[in-house]
Amino acid sequence: MAQRRERRTGRRRAGLAGDPEAEAVGRIAQPVHRLPIYELASEEALEIIHRASLELLSDVGIDFYHPEAEAILKAHGVRLAGQTAHFDREMIAEYVAKAPRQFTQLARNPARNVVIGGDYLTFAPVYGPPFVYDRDRGRREARLLDFQNFVKLTYLSPYLHHSGGTIVEPTDLPVHTRHLDMVYSHIRYSDKPFMGSVTSAGNAADSVRMAELVFGAEAIREQPALLSLINISSPRRLDDRMLGSLITYAQARQGLIITPFLFSGAMAPAAVGGTLVQLNAEALAGVVFAQMVNPGTPVVFGAFQTNIDLQSGAPVFGSPESQIALYVAGQLARRHGLPFRSGGMFASSKVADAQAAYESVMVMLPTVLAKVNFVLHAAGWLEGGLTAGYEKFILDEQLLGMFHKFLQGLDVSANGLALESLATVPPGGHHLGTPHTIANFRTAFHRSDLFDYNSFEQWYEEGAQTADERANTRYKAWLGDYEAPMLDPALDEALQAFMNRRKADIVPEM
Amino acid sequence: MAQRRERRTGRRRAGLAGDPEAEAVGRIAQPVHRLPIYELASEEALEIIHRASLELLSDVGIDFYHPEAEAILKAHGVRLAGQTAHFDREMIAEYVAKAPRQFTQLARNPARNVVIGGDYLTFAPVYGPPFVYDRDRGRREARLLDFQNFVKLTYLSPYLHHSGGTIVEPTDLPVHTRHLDMVYSHIRYSDKPFMGSVTSAGNAADSVRMAELVFGAEAIREQPALLSLINISSPRRLDDRMLGSLITYAQARQGLIITPFLFSGAMAPAAVGGTLVQLNAEALAGVVFAQMVNPGTPVVFGAFQTNIDLQSGAPVFGSPESQIALYVAGQLARRHGLPFRSGGMFASSKVADAQAAYESVMVMLPTVLAKVNFVLHAAGWLEGGLTAGYEKFILDEQLLGMFHKFLQGLDVSANGLALESLATVPPGGHHLGTPHTIANFRTAFHRSDLFDYNSFEQWYEEGAQTADERANTRYKAWLGDYEAPMLDPALDEALQAFMNRRKADIVPEM
Repeated sequence: MAQRRERRTGRRRAGLAGDPEAEAVGRIAQPVHRLPIYELASEEALEIIHRASLELLSDVGIDFYHPEAEAILKAHGVRLAGQTAHFDREMIAEYVAKAPRQFTQLARNPARNVVIGGDYLTFAPVYGPPFVYDRDRGRREARLLDFQNFVKLTYLSPYLHHSGGTIVEPTDLPVHTRHLDMVYSHIRYSDKPFMGSVTSAGNAADSVRMAELVFGAEAIREQPALLSLINISSPRRLDDRMLGSLITYAQARQGLIITPFLFSGAMAPAAVGGTLVQLNAEALAGVVFAQMVNPGTPVVFGAFQTNIDLQSGAPVFGSPESQIALYVAGQLARRHGLPFRSGGMFASSKVADAQAAYESVMVMLPTVLAKVNFVLHAAGWLEGGLTAGYEKFILDEQLLGMFHKFLQGLDVSANGLALESLATVPPGGHHLGTPHTIANFRTAFHRSDLFDYNSFEQWYEEGAQTADERANTRYKAWLGDYEAPMLDPALDEALQAFMNRRKADIVPEM
Repeated sequence: MAQRRERRTGRRRAGLAGDPEAEAVGRIAQPVHRLPIYELASEEALEIIHRASLELLSDVGIDFYHPEAEAILKAHGVRLAGQTAHFDREMIAEYVAKAPRQFTQLARNPARNVVIGGDYLTFAPVYGPPFVYDRDRGRREARLLDFQNFVKLTYLSPYLHHSGGTIVEPTDLPVHTRHLDMVYSHIRYSDKPFMGSVTSAGNAADSVRMAELVFGAEAIREQPALLSLINISSPRRLDDRMLGSLITYAQARQGLIITPFLFSGAMAPAAVGGTLVQLNAEALAGVVFAQMVNPGTPVVFGAFQTNIDLQSGAPVFGSPESQIALYVAGQLARRHGLPFRSGGMFASSKVADAQAAYESVMVMLPTVLAKVNFVLHAAGWLEGGLTAGYEKFILDEQLLGMFHKFLQGLDVSANGLALESLATVPPGGHHLGTPHTIANFRTAFHRSDLFDYNSFEQWYEEGAQTADERANTRYKAWLGDYEAPMLDPALDEALQAFMNRRKADIVPEM
């Protein structure tokens, strides 16, 4: 019975009928953030942090481990001492100003193009886990099938605007060619925008080539079709794989998210202020370098930050310190006039229990209030990012719907104030069935169709299911009802021919 | 083994040793909110809402079902049409201005006095549930033993500053005298401040008399020893029980929280704006009336608000609409210069699962950012307030600790910036064991000792416990280690003598 209702709900989602907010898959547009932004730090504190970052970049420097990168830096007047680059203050301002404040990323379905930056929010699924978890089979190594499942679930959600990148690592595929299967799966099973591979310059070039096949080589130079994740190997270095990918993408004018990857207490100081100094310095170095490679390349100021538990060394997600860092990183990004990436539904917990949920909202609600423009890991993250949870994905997605509604803000129009109802419903009366209530029945309040609001008795009689049990039923229903978006057979053939040729050519690294 | 470690942890909490943040029970002071407040609504929108509230109070009015209240209103120039009171704009401003902007509530242990209002936050446990839940016995009717257990758990938490009121309804006691046992239990098993009974004027008078026995009749007129919850019977009426309690407490100059109790779509319009108009009007009517009874009576502007699911009529907690209402209600309270009560760890879920946790943070994080001065329901709430959960209480308490740390804000001092560490840790190095990390080891990051940050393997080998399973062990450990604070035997005897006399005197209502 529960199974049957779930399947119907799933079909409604996938099949477009009835839901006032989501009559078509992904019909819901990106939320536009016109509410006040939570500005935690004073202008003075921001200035202290930014000045310290500039001094760090100028006096201490940051390492670039890539011969071509060194040549580019030298050609643009950066002081190099060995592999350590020293950037001057004026140079940073000059090159940051070359980056666009916002840009559009192409989707295979043009109705799903996303705006990155400005007042727009973009939600994308978890990225990177080598493991998956579900209630039936527990934790296991992720496979291509899991990757494709998460692409499909993301496609079906109206609240995820972006298909993401390495949603999980398909560990059943050879390392040296799996990037092809991942990019292909995004194209084949979704029509939302997606990310490219960053595991090497060659893999980045393959991603660009596949995007060219889908969108055309010229079109993607006008507006990027790939948005890819360049992590800084903090502290203070960019490694050759990331630099190779960065250069390849920037030359093809594809979007880049430059993200210091920081655990305060490990790769960064055991202090939020110092972590922000480092984060700002490292992100700016990457942004400036990308603009040296190709001025105008779309770049996003990234901030992946939390702290470790100093007693055990374990990463802690959802911490109060990471909230503070997130707000202030957003202030820095806006100061630079750059789109901002941070946050997500982070959790340290191993399963979709209360801890996972507490932790996730402790990061995601600040993510929304800080106006993070690109939210990777907006659904599915478990176990410090080592695991993608099927149930967690479904539960997180419920929250994303709520954030969409929250961002619509306060309505003080005549309808929003309902003055006539206020005056006519008598003391002790109720507003059920008033003309105002009837007129606003479908839109007044967001409705989660997975969370339980029934009486205890009804909930108990229907099996006393916990939220993750209901989510387990739901994800299977969605996958059962999934229908792939149309893909031109000629394009599909071209993509497969390219992949097959590359799979024959690429030599595994030893 | 897990049990033994839990018991040790419990003892450490209760026994004062080792924890850098909480060396004594309740040693942690109230958090002071000096961060920016999240101001969601524009000044213009606030003005629209406030003006509409004033018109509602003046033109439509609000009912007072109590003969003495009617006399008081009339004596102060309020226009009465039957039981409907019409308040003029100037009158409202005049009487609101008589209320203190902040006040101190006495605790039996003066070190635990709390400041209500200003920049201070006060966290109190759940209030009102007739049921309790734990993993071992499921959901059952609450008894006096449960009430006392929650008083003890609240006493042991350094992050709950207030013992609350009707934490649960002790359904095993006679209705007409159970208020005596509740007030006595707060005094006997805790030394934190507490709330009085509001079930009738007589019960309020009993609460005042017991407070007089503890603190002295004069002392509690100087600074209130009781802070009690006056709910408006929305829409637009105050009933005789609440008015009787209000008058009794105001005459004794005890603190009052005037709270419209609103589900948008039921007792309020299906619109956040209209709900705020009503909420503001109803709360102001109660505040003004209390100042007419006794000018200078400490009053708190209360806002209990969420919406129903319009399809089923069920209350929905953690909704995006309720977040918006909470932020704006806080803005209204500050506009009036009144302490603010709202929010809490609300959840619709029946158990301490992911849904309960998502919902709770969706309310509690806005509660903190909105600078709610008095947070009832800050721990233990389940099932729309029908159930107090033991595990939920313990889990919520973990979050309260995190909010304490969050409110310390960003440190951009030399130590907060850690510039020397930033310059000396080499590229690719780490900050483990640096002089700065060692110097900040205990205070840099808040540490939950209940949330799990271990590796998957370790978590799995130790029993793969979910958060609510760990919380189950924890609450039993705390209760096992509990030691009552000292109570003067003569005072105890006086309290018991009073109770026995009253129990013989009070005639049950038919």
